[in-house]
Amino acid sequence: MNVGFVGLGIMGTPMAQHLIGAGHRMFLHSRSGLPQGIAAPAAVACASAAEVARNANVIFIMVPDTPDVEAVLFGAGGIATALGESGDGPRRIIVDMSSISPTATKAFAGRINALGADYIDAPVSGGEVGAKAASLTIMCGGDPAVFDQVLPLLQTMGKNITLVGGNGDGQTTKVANQIIVALNIAAVGEALLFASRAGADPAKVRQALMGGFAASRILEVHGERMIKRSFAPGFRIRLHQKDLGLALQGARELDVALPQTAGAAQLMQVCAAHGMADLDHSALVKALEIMAEHPVAEG
Amino acid sequence: MNVGFVGLGIMGTPMAQHLIGAGHRMFLHSRSGLPQGIAAPAAVACASAAEVARNANVIFIMVPDTPDVEAVLFGAGGIATALGESGDGPRRIIVDMSSISPTATKAFAGRINALGADYIDAPVSGGEVGAKAASLTIMCGGDPAVFDQVLPLLQTMGKNITLVGGNGDGQTTKVANQIIVALNIAAVGEALLFASRAGADPAKVRQALMGGFAASRILEVHGERMIKRSFAPGFRIRLHQKDLGLALQGARELDVALPQTAGAAQLMQVCAAHGMADLDHSALVKALEIMAEHPVAEG
Repeated sequence: MNVGFVGLGIMGTPMAQHLIGAGHRMFLHSRSGLPQGIAAPAAVACASAAEVARNANVIFIMVPDTPDVEAVLFGAGGIATALGESGDGPRRIIVDMSSISPTATKAFAGRINALGADYIDAPVSGGEVGAKAASLTIMCGGDPAVFDQVLPLLQTMGKNITLVGGNGDGQTTKVANQIIVALNIAAVGEALLFASRAGADPAKVRQALMGGFAASRILEVHGERMIKRSFAPGFRIRLHQKDLGLALQGARELDVALPQTAGAAQLMQVCAAHGMADLDHSALVKALEIMAEHPVAEG
Repeated sequence: MNVGFVGLGIMGTPMAQHLIGAGHRMFLHSRSGLPQGIAAPAAVACASAAEVARNANVIFIMVPDTPDVEAVLFGAGGIATALGESGDGPRRIIVDMSSISPTATKAFAGRINALGADYIDAPVSGGEVGAKAASLTIMCGGDPAVFDQVLPLLQTMGKNITLVGGNGDGQTTKVANQIIVALNIAAVGEALLFASRAGADPAKVRQALMGGFAASRILEVHGERMIKRSFAPGFRIRLHQKDLGLALQGARELDVALPQTAGAAQLMQVCAAHGMADLDHSALVKALEIMAEHPVAEG
């Protein structure tokens, strides 16, 4: 199959390589040029996203944020240009694997459908490690028949692949995931800091809690990172801040209040303000430690 | 063994019955009198906690809050009275299974030690269901040799029994547990409400998230309760509010800030303000629903 890939950054490059490895004829475009080691004859470099779309049946997008996806789709030299030109060719499928706004995604899908193409939102979790290992979790929204067509391609990149519902529902699920992960990190941070300050051994407290209702993947993995003080990413605070921004922007659009998410976002902001935006998000606990150790004003 | 039990409420009664069932000679006292079905000849009713302590080697306490434990230990007719009288008898062990302040517990243990007796703090989780099924999780603090002496008695009441550290560490672990549980409930509530308002099926979102980093016992159990709208307790908001009060009071004593815990406590307060304090704590999601549906002022 002729497959396109737009956006060859830290995530996109290994993902595209899995598709190349599966034997697909690949058409690639990246704003900052193609990375080394992904060149011809395995893949064709294209000057624009439109050129990718002229050559490929399925076009994957993996770019940083909502405006980037909008530019790839509808900007100058964007995918929509090529869709507008196309005559009787096979119906194209756009698969956006970026993590962006669910409401913008619904609008983008509608505009792409109006141009005679299909759309799947398919954001991932698992980070660079998951991208390289082809073990990404992929949360999808779109038409089931279209999903079935791209599933074999997604399976070269990930493992837990779920069609949650219609367009936008994949992005909504990703936002929900990032809300829970952030708030569970804050939960473990406050609990372990409390325990530590009260004189208990946080490692023993974590162990005692693992069997009960406090059990979570975050207590297991990020709780251990907090105790062992290993804050190398992992998933950077900077990226989680962007995802919580999507949650809080979405909340405004949907008339929902997310007070705990807003609080956790501010704790991450405390970390960023102290130059820790590129630490793992488990370093949120450092914001609590800073708050406990440094009063606003000292006599 | 001669075993005492002070506090025969919803939790204490089934717990004492397990000790009776194990064949111990029991001495019981409860402020509001003994419940039916726990009477002689299996157990001896005592007029005071002091009378219990005069007859028993190990005395369990299961009362609501910090001042209640203080009254049982050091008030008129309290356990300390009997310890003050005792001569060459065997060294007594006080086991407080109530959920109370960790810092007060350290002070209580010190005063009991000074009277020539031992102290174990052993708060539980698992609620009335766990108390009846003898499946409580028991988080202990105290001397390991003393813990070993009471462990066979605790095993008649619970299953996951951990000695976390010295006196107070059991209560600290319980507080840490209640912090994580409350904040994970808020996390699942905000994520599922966001997803639902964005038009996704919250049941499918929950399912998609269960395999990844958002996975938790709370997403599994309480997430399902939120989706199925089954808010019968379970563990009541009223009791969780008391436990978060211990966390926030402890934070003041320890010079720690727990901003997310404070936020979750206020969400539970929204529920209480709407007459829902006796619903299961998963009903915290209703506070978020109320906040989304009812603006402060309508034009």
